[in-house]
Amino acid sequence: MAQRLGAIQYDAQGRLRHLLTLEGLRRETLEELFTLADSLVEVGARSVKNVPLLRGKTVVLLFFEASTRTRTTFEIAAKRLSADVVTLDVPASSASKGESLLDTIANLQAMQTDAFVVRHADSGASHLIARHVAPQVAVVNAGDGCHAHPTQALLDLYTIRQRRGNVAGMKVAIVGDVLHSRVARSQLAGLHLLGVTDIRLVGPATLVPQRLAQLGARVCHDPREGLADVDVVMMLRLQRERMAGGFVPSDREYFELYGLTEKALAVARPDALVMHPGPINRGVEIASAVADGGRSLILPQVTNGIAIRMAVLAQTAGRGADVDV
Amino acid sequence: MAQRLGAIQYDAQGRLRHLLTLEGLRRETLEELFTLADSLVEVGARSVKNVPLLRGKTVVLLFFEASTRTRTTFEIAAKRLSADVVTLDVPASSASKGESLLDTIANLQAMQTDAFVVRHADSGASHLIARHVAPQVAVVNAGDGCHAHPTQALLDLYTIRQRRGNVAGMKVAIVGDVLHSRVARSQLAGLHLLGVTDIRLVGPATLVPQRLAQLGARVCHDPREGLADVDVVMMLRLQRERMAGGFVPSDREYFELYGLTEKALAVARPDALVMHPGPINRGVEIASAVADGGRSLILPQVTNGIAIRMAVLAQTAGRGADVDV
Amino acid sequence: MAQRLGAIQYDAQGRLRHLLTLEGLRRETLEELFTLADSLVEVGARSVKNVPLLRGKTVVLLFFEASTRTRTTFEIAAKRLSADVVTLDVPASSASKGESLLDTIANLQAMQTDAFVVRHADSGASHLIARHVAPQVAVVNAGDGCHAHPTQALLDLYTIRQRRGNVAGMKVAIVGDVLHSRVARSQLAGLHLLGVTDIRLVGPATLVPQRLAQLGARVCHDPREGLADVDVVMMLRLQRERMAGGFVPSDREYFELYGLTEKALAVARPDALVMHPGPINRGVEIASAVADGGRSLILPQVTNGIAIRMAVLAQTAGRGADVDV
Repeated sequence: MAQRLGAIQYDAQGRLRHLLTLEGLRRETLEELFTLADSLVEVGARSVKNVPLLRGKTVVLLFFEASTRTRTTFEIAAKRLSADVVTLDVPASSASKGESLLDTIANLQAMQTDAFVVRHADSGASHLIARHVAPQVAVVNAGDGCHAHPTQALLDLYTIRQRRGNVAGMKVAIVGDVLHSRVARSQLAGLHLLGVTDIRLVGPATLVPQRLAQLGARVCHDPREGLADVDVVMMLRLQRERMAGGFVPSDREYFELYGLTEKALAVARPDALVMHPGPINRGVEIASAVADGGRSLILPQVTNGIAIRMAVLAQTAGRGADVDV
Repeated sequence: MAQRLGAIQYDAQGRLRHLLTLEGLRRETLEELFTLADSLVEVGARSVKNVPLLRGKTVVLLFFEASTRTRTTFEIAAKRLSADVVTLDVPASSASKGESLLDTIANLQAMQTDAFVVRHADSGASHLIARHVAPQVAVVNAGDGCHAHPTQALLDLYTIRQRRGNVAGMKVAIVGDVLHSRVARSQLAGLHLLGVTDIRLVGPATLVPQRLAQLGARVCHDPREGLADVDVVMMLRLQRERMAGGFVPSDREYFELYGLTEKALAVARPDALVMHPGPINRGVEIASAVADGGRSLILPQVTNGIAIRMAVLAQTAGRGADVDV
Repeated sequence: MAQRLGAIQYDAQGRLRHLLTLEGLRRETLEELFTLADSLVEVGARSVKNVPLLRGKTVVLLFFEASTRTRTTFEIAAKRLSADVVTLDVPASSASKGESLLDTIANLQAMQTDAFVVRHADSGASHLIARHVAPQVAVVNAGDGCHAHPTQALLDLYTIRQRRGNVAGMKVAIVGDVLHSRVARSQLAGLHLLGVTDIRLVGPATLVPQRLAQLGARVCHDPREGLADVDVVMMLRLQRERMAGGFVPSDREYFELYGLTEKALAVARPDALVMHPGPINRGVEIASAVADGGRSLILPQVTNGIAIRMAVLAQTAGRGADVDV
């Protein structure tokens, strides 16, 4: 399956064409994206932050699910690459049938657009689109259902690498609502790709059932065990909107048992990195003292999110273009 | 009347100033727009698709009626001309009185904007605006009521010309809900202007009443008669939202009688062109086999729609500017 | 207090850093903004109206309260400065707590954005934001609660100066719903700063209670007294949506007593300037004959609003940048 997922994401010359999921990507691809992001982070420190990598290209932000935060980061990333950006907020109702989704794509593509950044509530929507676009069009998955959110995972890995020089060999805990998290699935794929073997999924059995061990990680219901000696704590957001039916802990219960406090963090390594994809629920998943503390990388993650999304758009939508930073 | 409609659309030097309707335009104006679109289609094939024809100009997309598709095409067209684009989605309620519409226009114009692209549910709204704007401001009608949708008709005519070299002398069928269609009215005006004399309006008597023959076309209720030997079939969209009161056929009934299938198309010329302004209702107006078949120009129409809208904006909003493609 | 308000708006080098309110600003600051606006008004008369003062900078329009008109003017101003513009329409509900407002700001700032243009229903929201942003980020108040709307007042003062050469020594009437008007508060601060001493607040006791005299102006319930011999009449908009509870005059009653007609204006100086921040309620606050008459500056105000907002963004977000118009 990794081979199949890889095949659709690369072109005949072996260059990254789409970013749909981290599964099936080559490790070198991640390194290339990280190196490009390094150069773009330096650009970001300048007064003029724009580069002409996508000048004259049209990037379509195709959001079938509302997400102001993710849309804004892609919009800023695309504009800093000098692309023209067109935003389409498509209500889910008018796009419920696969057929009309593909008609929408066919039409937008006929407008000679160059990239689709797709957010969709259905797992696999961006794969479906990628299978139908013309050779010169790139598709970037900005989150699909519970399946994948690859740019979020890339920016997380990039942030660890930026602070530690490397990701391989780290001990990592992913804490919270793993069951409903597309972020966690992409993080696991990326951590495996970069050679991380000690990964713990931490949370109550309702949110981290034992069967998730098949994702290639150890399931821990006891946070003291899960966080013991880790280098990195990756918090997840409680996704109440996805918890239909099952057990939903109260905010206070959850915080008492699994909230990341200074005390809970005491069992981790003293220099452990604390990460969160945002937006954070203060006092629910994480104490403000930790979120705003010296080990927190929450805001550097946001900054790196722009650089990583610029790198992904430049590599995919800018394939084959003459590069002139 | 054609003279009056022409007078308002040209400036004192005889250059196209507004595009409100195809009625009253000179045939040379269409040829000039088509020639300019030809050069812009070539631009579209390049990696950098932008030209500086409207650099430093502000184009306002003023949509009193929602239309994601048309708005997107104008937005892309204006950005490819390097214009600054400002979008105003104005709820109909706050603009119900002519007075406040003109106050809105006066204010936007005072911001030294250069063009208004107007979509409005009331027929004649863009004419009203055109009569009140300052000499340097251009108005482009992006669809008003049941009256006109001139850029759609222009791109249709342009697409026929691109495939056949010429439009004059073609036999053309316009099929469907002619009664409620602003597209059909503009198509008829454009076909007449380019010398087409054999035009058939095809559909049930409720949607194509006999009195529509006064538009300068033959009314046919029998599709076998209407499509016989035609060079071009221009399908219309069923506009259920406009059929208040009258007879509304079921999707299945309509498709059985008037849906464009391979079989229905068999009476047309073997190389007949199939067109549709989109979005298409598969299995209602048109069979998927035809929509996706070799004679369908539905997606080329979308591509040409960008070039035609670029040409219209460049000619009107770019009047008198030094041109440097 | 003026000292404290000034301190937060200037940087250590004494340059304007934020524009939150006119209180506490130095008179020279206004003169500098007016001089810069003068040069930008000339730019506006050219075919290419853009200048590269903010090229490569990202301006975030952060609107917690809907305002198409103000948003559009800032969007046009920022684009004419060649900035990248990102718009966030934030529903008030998701930002009701100060904590999450600051988290939103921290995140947007981490994306290396350069300026926030803030509209908020709560008085002081832009001050709160200004106290928490990084040194390189500028905050511009686009209207907060009943507190301040400084760019509106600046453009009003700029318009008077443009027509009369000076503002000091003018006799000015501010007419209408002063009680609920953030515009009036900013106008008063600006008029005082520029040396205007004869200011009258004109309206019924319910909208202009006597205690408003503490703002440094004379309260007049009789418009004949209030408008006598004035050089400038600044009309306000009736803000019915803010008049919860209190007396709400009918449109007709209000117009009879306080509407600005040719007759009411007869007691003012013959060359009195008539101003209104828009949108105007014709036949309620102002007669059409006056709004559209020779003394009305309503549309020049709109034009100047672009130049003033360009000047404010260039001075604050462009601080320290090499300027090359």
